[in-house]
Amino acid sequence: MATPARSGPAGVGRNLESPLQSVPGASQEEIRRQNLGAVLRYVHLHGPTSRAELTSRLGLNRSTIGALAAELTASGLVTEEVPTTARRAGRPSLVVSPRSDRVYANALSIDADRLRAARVGLGGRILDLREVVRPGGMSAIDAVGPLADLVRDMERAVAPDTLLVGGAVAVTDTTRDPDGRIRIASVDESLGAALDAEFAPGPGFVTGDLADIAGLAEHIRGVAADVDDLIYLHGDVGISAGIIVAGRLVMGHQGHSGKVGHMVVNPNGLPCGCGSRGCWETEVGEAALLRHAGRDPGDRAAVAEVLAAAADGDPRAREAVEQVADWLGFGVGNLVNVVNPDAVVFGGSLRDVFIAGADVVRRRLDTMPLPVSREHLRLQPAALDENAVLIGAAELAFDKLLADPLNVGVAGQVGCPESA
Amino acid sequence: MATPARSGPAGVGRNLESPLQSVPGASQEEIRRQNLGAVLRYVHLHGPTSRAELTSRLGLNRSTIGALAAELTASGLVTEEVPTTARRAGRPSLVVSPRSDRVYANALSIDADRLRAARVGLGGRILDLREVVRPGGMSAIDAVGPLADLVRDMERAVAPDTLLVGGAVAVTDTTRDPDGRIRIASVDESLGAALDAEFAPGPGFVTGDLADIAGLAEHIRGVAADVDDLIYLHGDVGISAGIIVAGRLVMGHQGHSGKVGHMVVNPNGLPCGCGSRGCWETEVGEAALLRHAGRDPGDRAAVAEVLAAAADGDPRAREAVEQVADWLGFGVGNLVNVVNPDAVVFGGSLRDVFIAGADVVRRRLDTMPLPVSREHLRLQPAALDENAVLIGAAELAFDKLLADPLNVGVAGQVGCPESA
Repeated sequence: MATPARSGPAGVGRNLESPLQSVPGASQEEIRRQNLGAVLRYVHLHGPTSRAELTSRLGLNRSTIGALAAELTASGLVTEEVPTTARRAGRPSLVVSPRSDRVYANALSIDADRLRAARVGLGGRILDLREVVRPGGMSAIDAVGPLADLVRDMERAVAPDTLLVGGAVAVTDTTRDPDGRIRIASVDESLGAALDAEFAPGPGFVTGDLADIAGLAEHIRGVAADVDDLIYLHGDVGISAGIIVAGRLVMGHQGHSGKVGHMVVNPNGLPCGCGSRGCWETEVGEAALLRHAGRDPGDRAAVAEVLAAAADGDPRAREAVEQVADWLGFGVGNLVNVVNPDAVVFGGSLRDVFIAGADVVRRRLDTMPLPVSREHLRLQPAALDENAVLIGAAELAFDKLLADPLNVGVAGQVGCPESA
Repeated sequence: MATPARSGPAGVGRNLESPLQSVPGASQEEIRRQNLGAVLRYVHLHGPTSRAELTSRLGLNRSTIGALAAELTASGLVTEEVPTTARRAGRPSLVVSPRSDRVYANALSIDADRLRAARVGLGGRILDLREVVRPGGMSAIDAVGPLADLVRDMERAVAPDTLLVGGAVAVTDTTRDPDGRIRIASVDESLGAALDAEFAPGPGFVTGDLADIAGLAEHIRGVAADVDDLIYLHGDVGISAGIIVAGRLVMGHQGHSGKVGHMVVNPNGLPCGCGSRGCWETEVGEAALLRHAGRDPGDRAAVAEVLAAAADGDPRAREAVEQVADWLGFGVGNLVNVVNPDAVVFGGSLRDVFIAGADVVRRRLDTMPLPVSREHLRLQPAALDENAVLIGAAELAFDKLLADPLNVGVAGQVGCPESA
């Protein structure tokens, strides 16, 4: 696919593609294209919406909205229906709905210990989902074969008149050698290219960082949909962040921003697999929780047990949660002084740690960042939980369709109107 | 002025107002307005430019550029002249130059210990500059009177046919009580409003954070003009940052981003005036350097002496610089893992510390952030030095003119063509 790896996420968000964006060389055709995108994006994000509401929300006039909705209907991207309960007298405004059943993206995720593939319908609905174990040591590129098998397996159940608009794969760029040493791989185009090759001549795959994509999902459809500045913290074996500033993902040079797990918080702390010492993830990663609880730091399955024991009042487990939560608050405090976000969202295994130790996190935060940076601050567990990554990946994949609804994979569909 | 305080900086940068931005309701008039802005911005940033080069750089055709340049000339914003050395045969392309002598902004800065005012001409040239001491304990709002006096003093020397397009004031939102306690003031509209009242019915003042504005200046006209992701670190009594991501300032909630001086880097460190302990500025602020050198930590004037002594090989001064430089590298390492910028720029008193201890900063950085985040990283002293703040403030003030060249204070000027 032509889109360079990792360039996708930066441009995706709630605030883009308003109906008021255009270019001057710009013909009426260009303006129409953008307005089609604005209508489709609105119903994609907000669900079924009446023409009347679209008119008022998008600041376009009634006849324009009517023409745009009719065109999207004719392309099979939305349906228009008379509302079942008309609230007042007179001719009711038709309701425009995204065709989640027909228009979909393939969303893939290469997690620390599993591989997942989902079909996500327009509107963000997960239609189908498969997963397999990711064996220890399997590289991202070696995951392409098993992921392709999952996708093919799902495709077998798909009706013939559906429309695949694209795909995206979320992957962490951090890998660990068997000896615990951390390597950061370039999330380069090879992964996307290998997937493209499996499904050529399909619409292709965009690649993005897992925490970036999960953060984007929480911003678009999760707990942080109402704010434009947020830090999403993702915990699994390590800790990383998706940072959104003014509604856009912070990518950094070559996309390696958000390596917050390797901020040094404890100069006298433990050695980290990255070669440094006292990194945040040595204090708040899953291994830290297990260590404090007297468990095998490599036994990921025991994390849930420790959290459950803490909830049941087990003193040692509770103490372990509190130590981790205190360091969690410490690192969040530093990030808050730097970025000054509206919200910090905890996802992955940090979601559970935050829920178990929110009071301790908050107490530490009350002693650290400047009052102006913390008084308004919202701390929240992720809402979409483990599906955030798949929903966010689908958003990346939908982005091209939403930018130009009639030019993405819909060739030949115009003129085949669906029942309205 | 209608622009809310602090909303200015976010939209200012090298990448904005390209000639390809417009809005769809958009008439030809709107497109013309934006293209005028694009031409004016280009010569404002790049200096005298031939019509031929403008044609190629802005992607507009020759006759359009000719018409735009003629219109800007007629408005007294630029001049067009035959180049003195034509490089090839044929009719030479006219050179378009910003009228720095005629079109200017008032740029003000409320520094820790002085108040400054400058007249900055279009093109970023400082035309005049005044300063007075800021007495200890003087609030930002109390600085309005003395600043207004400086501006009036400069205005007396201004020729009658000049055009004032706007003003901006840079101020740090951090103040210190006599007992060292740090307070963060809201940089609210009151400061801009008080300045506006002094000069009503003039074009008004925009307000911005000092480190943000200095960082913007380094990005627009300084050492970081070629990158889009940078962290500008400003040192005076405290440490703060202007963070630019994808060409835009990170503002944060209510504009209080970049409080990097209050990241905790040393959990067992010294108490900080903010109420926390071991903040970065307790290790790299001017007081830390003076403390390590055995000087009075409150004697700011001695900072230069310590740096000079270190350069002369004085062991204790050298040791002091190295200790501070090591912690400087430590904090930069953490920031680099979070934001992953292309460059870190050291300004204010950190500029001198960096120059004196660059090897130590680099050595610490080599042990900390992930290789992907540090291998490409450029560390640089600020180029504009203490004038960065004034130049950056002028950019904020020019922004309205550059967005709509014929609508800012130029009323009545059209039809009074200048000699070409």
